[in-house]
Parts: sequence; structure tokens; C-alpha cells
Amino acid sequence: MAYEFKAQRCVEFSDTDMAGIMHYSNFFRFMETAEHGFFRSLGFSICDRQRVPLVGWPRVHASCDYAKPLRFEDLVEIHLLVAEKRSKAISYQIRFRKLGGAAPEEVARGRLTVVCVSYDDSGAMRAANIPDEVAAKIEVAPRELLEA
Amino acid sequence: MAYEFKAQRCVEFSDTDMAGIMHYSNFFRFMETAEHGFFRSLGFSICDRQRVPLVGWPRVHASCDYAKPLRFEDLVEIHLLVAEKRSKAISYQIRFRKLGGAAPEEVARGRLTVVCVSYDDSGAMRAANIPDEVAAKIEVAPRELLEA
Amino acid sequence: MAYEFKAQRCVEFSDTDMAGIMHYSNFFRFMETAEHGFFRSLGFSICDRQRVPLVGWPRVHASCDYAKPLRFEDLVEIHLLVAEKRSKAISYQIRFRKLGGAAPEEVARGRLTVVCVSYDDSGAMRAANIPDEVAAKIEVAPRELLEA
Amino acid sequence: MAYEFKAQRCVEFSDTDMAGIMHYSNFFRFMETAEHGFFRSLGFSICDRQRVPLVGWPRVHASCDYAKPLRFEDLVEIHLLVAEKRSKAISYQIRFRKLGGAAPEEVARGRLTVVCVSYDDSGAMRAANIPDEVAAKIEVAPRELLEA
Repeated sequence: MAYEFKAQRCVEFSDTDMAGIMHYSNFFRFMETAEHGFFRSLGFSICDRQRVPLVGWPRVHASCDYAKPLRFEDLVEIHLLVAEKRSKAISYQIRFRKLGGAAPEEVARGRLTVVCVSYDDSGAMRAANIPDEVAAKIEVAPRELLEA
Repeated sequence: MAYEFKAQRCVEFSDTDMAGIMHYSNFFRFMETAEHGFFRSLGFSICDRQRVPLVGWPRVHASCDYAKPLRFEDLVEIHLLVAEKRSKAISYQIRFRKLGGAAPEEVARGRLTVVCVSYDDSGAMRAANIPDEVAAKIEVAPRELLEA
Repeated sequence: MAYEFKAQRCVEFSDTDMAGIMHYSNFFRFMETAEHGFFRSLGFSICDRQRVPLVGWPRVHASCDYAKPLRFEDLVEIHLLVAEKRSKAISYQIRFRKLGGAAPEEVARGRLTVVCVSYDDSGAMRAANIPDEVAAKIEVAPRELLEA
Repeated sequence: MAYEFKAQRCVEFSDTDMAGIMHYSNFFRFMETAEHGFFRSLGFSICDRQRVPLVGWPRVHASCDYAKPLRFEDLVEIHLLVAEKRSKAISYQIRFRKLGGAAPEEVARGRLTVVCVSYDDSGAMRAANIPDEVAAKIEVAPRELLEA
């Protein structure tokens, strides 16, 4: 069972905008980097074409609170914590810490809620239970970590 | 005084991901499209290099709740409403409606809170009052609209 | 029969980078905007899920020569011309002109070569003839236009 | 003196499009990842705010030939080779190899030509000689490597 994962990214030139900082929408791309790395760390792919039925993980909620900007070549840790786990949905808390200084500094904190869906033959999505073998490996992070 | 703006976008191929729907981070790019169009509708640019001192509008909060996916070539209306106005910050409510069917259908709703900052000579940002001529043109939307 | 299409885009904040200009990769996204608009102007969608067999249009070549930068809120015309048409491939010439000044100014010129592919049951792509009804509507632009 | 650099990237979900493959514009973002990593490997940043005068590296040409698609979670090596070096410009050849199979497989090959510019007080760009200490560290790759 696992409740967290840490990914790292270096802010790239194409992640910045004319204000000289990482564009705010890219924090959401980075959240997903951590989410998918978390799944790989459990031995799964977020997109497993062999699974029957095929499942997907569309987002129902995404949010981010920004405290400080990230800039080109900043090294950032994306720390994902499982905040909630239900039969068909998972919520993640995601913290962005800028590395490289004396102490890592939290620059942003986000939340991502995803639902598990299966696809029918027409490709339409329907909420589905998280597959057992996936659910069995995921647990909610300790409250004191989530509230830190 | 204005409290709303509507932009339109056609979902492009590069906005989609391998799940066949618009990537969730792109809703945040579209929110900004409406925000900047709102400023232009008031006679300003969000990035006015002539203004002294130079001001910027970094985000302190962004969120989105997703009800239905958007797909390639969907025409979407991005309806921005001013939800809050303070001396140094503005909050927008932003509604995504898919056009083209019998009735426009709300597919997502977001929120964006921006703060006005000025830049000192080193480029560092500091919260600043919204310039008077900008503040004078922006008002909060009627409550019944925001709660609809 | 048609050999050209013009799309317009306003450069958005999220299209820029920290150099204050449109990121060079986004010219390729804009090329595609014109390509897909061209197909719609002919009565097709570049992604027609009803077509049997399903066809796609992956790129085999893309290039761009940049003469001048585009900046935030620049209005740009993306002028697509059919440069070559073969049984399984099409090449487009694409010109970017900045509008809004006394005379439109060409700021970049690109080339895009796409091949028509069909998908087998496993999803693998194989080069395929351009569907007849599509090929019947597309012609090569006059040489004097392409060489202008 | 150095003439090459290798970067690695894992194809992310947000790099893909509804065709299920990496969007063709993202190869250009990845090229830049290698270019900027190359500069860091030489002890420089592509964006050195301390340098007087400030220099930038806008692109005058970018191209890519695509042989095979990249898919989600593919690990790709981005191999940059210096193809040409002039007083004010550098051309890079960039090869994309998919790792993880028995042998790395080249899936695309690109070219990027950048010019060195300095900025005057108004922010306008003007072609400038590559700074000596940068030029001193960069050499053209052996012909047999470039033609392999």
C-alpha cells in the first residue's frame, strides 16, 4: 500500500510565459506527472490498454493555490499525497517545492480529484469502481501529513 | 462599468489528449483567454508596457470543476463573471458552455483569483492597488447571476 | 476544388515565453489550426469517426523559417496553400502574416507534409490513399502563388 | 569544447493528442530541452540575466522529419549535435531515439538554427556575435557523426 509519490521536474523555457514565470496552467500538467508516476510506482500504467474493460481517470476537480512563482531552470519537487479514496474516485493533494536552496520551499499546493470510468463500445464514459488490484495498493495518507 | 465577458473558442486538435478529450489543463488556458478579452473590452491590455509602474496579474488561486468533456471541434463559450473585487485582487467565476446543440450546456465551471502586483527595479513582484482607471471600470456581477 | 485557406489567431499570453514572444513551437500548433480549418471549409473534419476505414493524417515533415517574432495580442493570419498533392500525401505551405499594421507583414513561413493512414484493428497505422471524395476537392495552388 | 548532448524525456499524457501519439509540435519543445541542457553542460544558462549585454537565442529555422510516432510513457533520448557554428548563429541536428527496446530506434530527426541577439534599451533584438566564452566551448560535431 502506498499513499505518496515524489516526482521532480526542471522548469523548461516552454513552461514559462512573458511574465518570466511558469505559466499557471502548467502546474496542472506537473500534477499529472506525479499522478502517473505514482501509478507506475505501484506497477500500473494510468493508461493500460490491456485491461478489460478499459478504464480511464477523467478529472472532476482540479485546483491550485500559488504562493510563489517558479522560474526557468528551477528544480521543483511535486509531492503527491492520497487525500481521499472512495469506491470510484481518488483525491490527491499535491505540493510543489522549489529545491536547490538551503531548504525546500513550498511554492504552490493543489488538489486533483479523479474518477474511474469505463468505456462502453461507443466510447462513452461511465463511472466505475476502481479495479480491485489498483485499489488494494492505494491508501490515504496519514492526517498529520495532509495537514502539515 | 462591466462585470462579464464572453469569449468563444473552438477546441483544437492540440488541445486534446490521448483520451480523446480536451486536456484538463487547457481549461485554465481558456479561462485566461476570457480574462484578457475582458480587459480588452474595457479598453486595457492585461500587459500594458506603457503603464508606470508596470503592473502584472499573477494568479493566487485557480480551480475548475468538470462536468462533461469537451472534444475536438466543439465550440465553447467561456463566460467570465466578476465574483469579487478587492483593492488588490479580483476573483472571476468562469463558465464553460458547449455551443452548437439545441441549448448551450455547461460543461465546466472555474474560478480564478488574481492579484495586482507592481515590479521593482530588480523585477521582484509586490502586491499593489489595482490602478484607479481599471478599478473604475470593473464591478461585481449581480449575486443572482453568480449563483445561477 | 480549393487550394488555400486563411485562419486568424490572436496570440495569447499562454502562447508566449519568457523572451516575451510567441514560443517557436506554437507556430506549429497554428499551422494545424489552418490545416483543420481548410478541411472544414471543404465539408470534412480531419477527424471523421464515421468514416470506414478510419483515416488519420500524421506528419512526416514540419518546418518553419522565422523572420520576425509575434507578441502577445498580435493578430496573425495563417495562410495555408496546397503545395503538393500525391496519392497518399499532401504538402502545405503556410505563411504567417501579422495583421493590424498599415500592411500585413510576413513574419514566418512553414511547411507541413502529412500522409494519409488507415488504422488496422490493432490500431497500427498504414499509409493509405487519400479518400476519393477528399482528393476530389483539393488541388495544388498556382505556382506563382507558391513562389510569391 | 563540446559538440553533443543527450537528454532524456518520458512522454507525458499532456504531450499526447487524440490520435494517441505525441503531438508533433512537442518534438520542438523537446529539442529545446536538449539545447538548454547542452548549455548547462557547458556551465552556462541559455538565459543568463547577469550577462551584459543580455543576449537571447531566437530561432530562425526549425524542422523535423518524423519516421515513427512516440506514445505515452515512451522513454526518448534527445541527442543534440552541433551541425554548424558561425559568428552569430548555431545549427543543431537533433535525433530522437526511443529507448527501452532491444536497440534504440530513431523515430525522428530535426534541425534547429538559432541566432544570438542582444537587446537594446527598448527591448528590440539585434543579431550579435556569440559571446567569446560561449563560442570557445562549442565545436562542430565530426562529419561522420552528422551523416550517420
